[in-house]
Amino acid sequence: MRRIAHATLPDFIVQQFQRGGDYHHRQLYRIVKDGILRAALPAGSRLPPTRELAQTLGIARNTIVQVYEQLALEGLLQAGVGRGTYVANLAPAFAEPPAPTPVQRRGTPLSRRGRAIVGGARASAVQWGAFAPGVPELRMFPGAVWSRLQARAWREVAAPQLSYATGAGHPLLRAAIAEHLQGTRGMACSAEQVLVTSGAQQALHLIAHLLADPGDAVWLEDPGYWGARSAFRMAGLQLQPVALDGEGLAPTPQQLQAPPRLMFTSPSHQYPSGVLMGHGRRRQLLDYAAAHRVWIVEDDYDSEFRFASRPLPALQGLDAHGRVIYLGTFSKTMFPALRLAYLVLPPDLIDSFARALSELFREGQTLQQITLAQFMRQGHYVSHIRRMRQVYGERRRVLIDEIARRLGGAVSVLGSDAGLHLVLGLPRGADDETIARQALTRGVLTRPLSLYSLRPDPAPGLVLGYGAVTEEEIRHSFGLLAEVIEPLRR
Amino acid sequence: MRRIAHATLPDFIVQQFQRGGDYHHRQLYRIVKDGILRAALPAGSRLPPTRELAQTLGIARNTIVQVYEQLALEGLLQAGVGRGTYVANLAPAFAEPPAPTPVQRRGTPLSRRGRAIVGGARASAVQWGAFAPGVPELRMFPGAVWSRLQARAWREVAAPQLSYATGAGHPLLRAAIAEHLQGTRGMACSAEQVLVTSGAQQALHLIAHLLADPGDAVWLEDPGYWGARSAFRMAGLQLQPVALDGEGLAPTPQQLQAPPRLMFTSPSHQYPSGVLMGHGRRRQLLDYAAAHRVWIVEDDYDSEFRFASRPLPALQGLDAHGRVIYLGTFSKTMFPALRLAYLVLPPDLIDSFARALSELFREGQTLQQITLAQFMRQGHYVSHIRRMRQVYGERRRVLIDEIARRLGGAVSVLGSDAGLHLVLGLPRGADDETIARQALTRGVLTRPLSLYSLRPDPAPGLVLGYGAVTEEEIRHSFGLLAEVIEPLRR
Repeated sequence: MRRIAHATLPDFIVQQFQRGGDYHHRQLYRIVKDGILRAALPAGSRLPPTRELAQTLGIARNTIVQVYEQLALEGLLQAGVGRGTYVANLAPAFAEPPAPTPVQRRGTPLSRRGRAIVGGARASAVQWGAFAPGVPELRMFPGAVWSRLQARAWREVAAPQLSYATGAGHPLLRAAIAEHLQGTRGMACSAEQVLVTSGAQQALHLIAHLLADPGDAVWLEDPGYWGARSAFRMAGLQLQPVALDGEGLAPTPQQLQAPPRLMFTSPSHQYPSGVLMGHGRRRQLLDYAAAHRVWIVEDDYDSEFRFASRPLPALQGLDAHGRVIYLGTFSKTMFPALRLAYLVLPPDLIDSFARALSELFREGQTLQQITLAQFMRQGHYVSHIRRMRQVYGERRRVLIDEIARRLGGAVSVLGSDAGLHLVLGLPRGADDETIARQALTRGVLTRPLSLYSLRPDPAPGLVLGYGAVTEEEIRHSFGLLAEVIEPLRR
Repeated sequence: MRRIAHATLPDFIVQQFQRGGDYHHRQLYRIVKDGILRAALPAGSRLPPTRELAQTLGIARNTIVQVYEQLALEGLLQAGVGRGTYVANLAPAFAEPPAPTPVQRRGTPLSRRGRAIVGGARASAVQWGAFAPGVPELRMFPGAVWSRLQARAWREVAAPQLSYATGAGHPLLRAAIAEHLQGTRGMACSAEQVLVTSGAQQALHLIAHLLADPGDAVWLEDPGYWGARSAFRMAGLQLQPVALDGEGLAPTPQQLQAPPRLMFTSPSHQYPSGVLMGHGRRRQLLDYAAAHRVWIVEDDYDSEFRFASRPLPALQGLDAHGRVIYLGTFSKTMFPALRLAYLVLPPDLIDSFARALSELFREGQTLQQITLAQFMRQGHYVSHIRRMRQVYGERRRVLIDEIARRLGGAVSVLGSDAGLHLVLGLPRGADDETIARQALTRGVLTRPLSLYSLRPDPAPGLVLGYGAVTEEEIRHSFGLLAEVIEPLRR
């Protein structure tokens, strides 16, 4: 290898380097790398020692060490043993890669299934602000407590906790969840029945793939949660919308003749309509499921936030035949970005689900699970829920007052006294998608009720989330929304 | 409501409470709850004020406040405004739930698909210790640095970062990944082509569902990564094993006649055999993919750890027709429990993938993404990789020395000089599953090579991970393993 003295090299670098300018590490990295790739620093050139260059440039030596290490990792520099750092002989393949060629393709490159998934997608591109549904008040989350518990988990970490996990979740968290559910949801469950997942969607994928085959029918509440629809569609199930009445999921006599493989329901606070499933209907569906071997997926996504009445216990607690799969999430009580949810499964399903979770998704997030378990054990979870319940109850009241004050009887408010959102029912014939679009031009996010339906002629309405909206913001934003809706009164 | 004075109540509690015994919060919770459910504390009873009870029991008042709050949330206690805390009138539904009934079911409750997924599962139940494959040395991960960066992200958190994410990942992380890949992998990509996922499996689910329809064929390296097999099986694809030769994936002339929809390959370090795909084969496959509109999924799971030669650049960098989907993970370079991986997609696919990611899985983990981006930007990522590369190189050398010393020519070592594992090739006819089972009884974990194959007569061997095994552990554990294998020499 040809050796070139480094005497002149610092000049090359010093001339381009601007101290106090853009991020030193990146600047230096670019200067040296460009020099190598343009052959201004030819193969075999010796780079200045890090200490010397640090003094010349007046920056931390560590920055220079890191830049050299990065470039060595890229194969552009080589360390001669005890003899400094040299520019490597570049393999031709390692010349700067070509700029990405814009690919010219006719039509969509997606598969039919891919087109259906993307075309039918309903997830909103906005997840913050008035009136994003399903978003809790994240400004009041006790982040300092969480961060402290998380730091503690890291201080006490055992190496295997950083590896792949291989079970249904961390035992501490499973126990904390079971205890919480026994108390608050009237559920008959042990920690061994709890399976921790990375979000509710992952849990739905497991259910759909392990308990149903392609072409099997699934009953979905209509209107209902779009995320479940997408998960079941991805699994190749046949989606059958089932209407709601005042008691909840109300299959027609004809539908009852052909039992599905799965039914998906949110009995404690139907999403999005807010209907509370009555006791009679609960018994009816449980008996039907037992007789026809139907799995009931009970989505209990926001049952913690019920403002006036005490919640009815979960369906799961009434199930004597192991037909109910209970789905809970920490997205509403903690924060959505945490990505932790859980299933409570009949005891004979837990091993298969745990095995499939490892196989299909691989699990981890162990330190977050430990942190959450401590957060629950130390009482922060219950305190936070209690505090937020008051906040949400008050916000709900303010929004309902605003609706009455500004729109009076032109609209109806659907849903029981619970949760993080309500539905503003619009007069038959109103076009909720157009209204939502108009509202968005004024900066107000609403979700048209028709998006939650598979039926050809869905009832129009607007789903309004108030969880993450202060009372002042509610008054302001609803004022703007009312101006869009007002013309409908006439 | 009947009011009962609380004068006698502390006795009830004090008698059962053991200070310094099991976790105070849980004890007190159980005592009071049992008292209510057994009606030893009848509806309307007033509980002692928290301050008073704290003094009597000699524990923190806050513990008592939390227990009362928990029981209030459960509907068992009610706060009378300014007048203390009372036992509530219990709705019958809220009596203690029945113990879970063991469900008696004949046969498996799983669907056909579910049985195939669980029955074909290959994920190991052990993810730590000698010789668990694919696990990095987690004892040397700079957890203190990570924890500090994570705490900073929490201190600077903006509320929307705690909500659902709605894109392809945090911009800082996407930029850091793109820059790293351009430098180290010879890749032509911009930050806009990077999609951050919760682990590689989630990325595979997206690919299989968006780019292929049920029944479409996928080529899989054989032996190959079982996780990809499971993801593609879950998506209803037809799995076609393709043999390897010294240059990597080697489809037969017959297979070339029927182009698949997808091919899955790990060209830089074939998993698990370690074959490095040569330049000619790379070009061949790229041309074939372009001509027949096949998607190539390039799994680059551990390319950072190459000990002697410099790595070949990624296939992606040679692709001029937008047929390569590059899959990278932080499980090997950081730690598996982090659950962060990424795709580099052709530019015209990124929007659809981001939308499907939101719809099918919902995203979050934003603060972990920010923490990782900072970890990379500050140079810790590259330093850690460099350090671990030396460690792994040394461990590999020790393991190979042990193999030669103890077993000599009776076995072969497969795979190039890279990664976190090697394959011990066994003589034709050896039963690798039995050997692995015997080794496990001595506490040594190995993975039979035949588990990685779909062919009827797979070559026998043992996959040995040395990433998380110290040199001393390697010598000790391989000694035990050699005793199991020795009889084969004769």
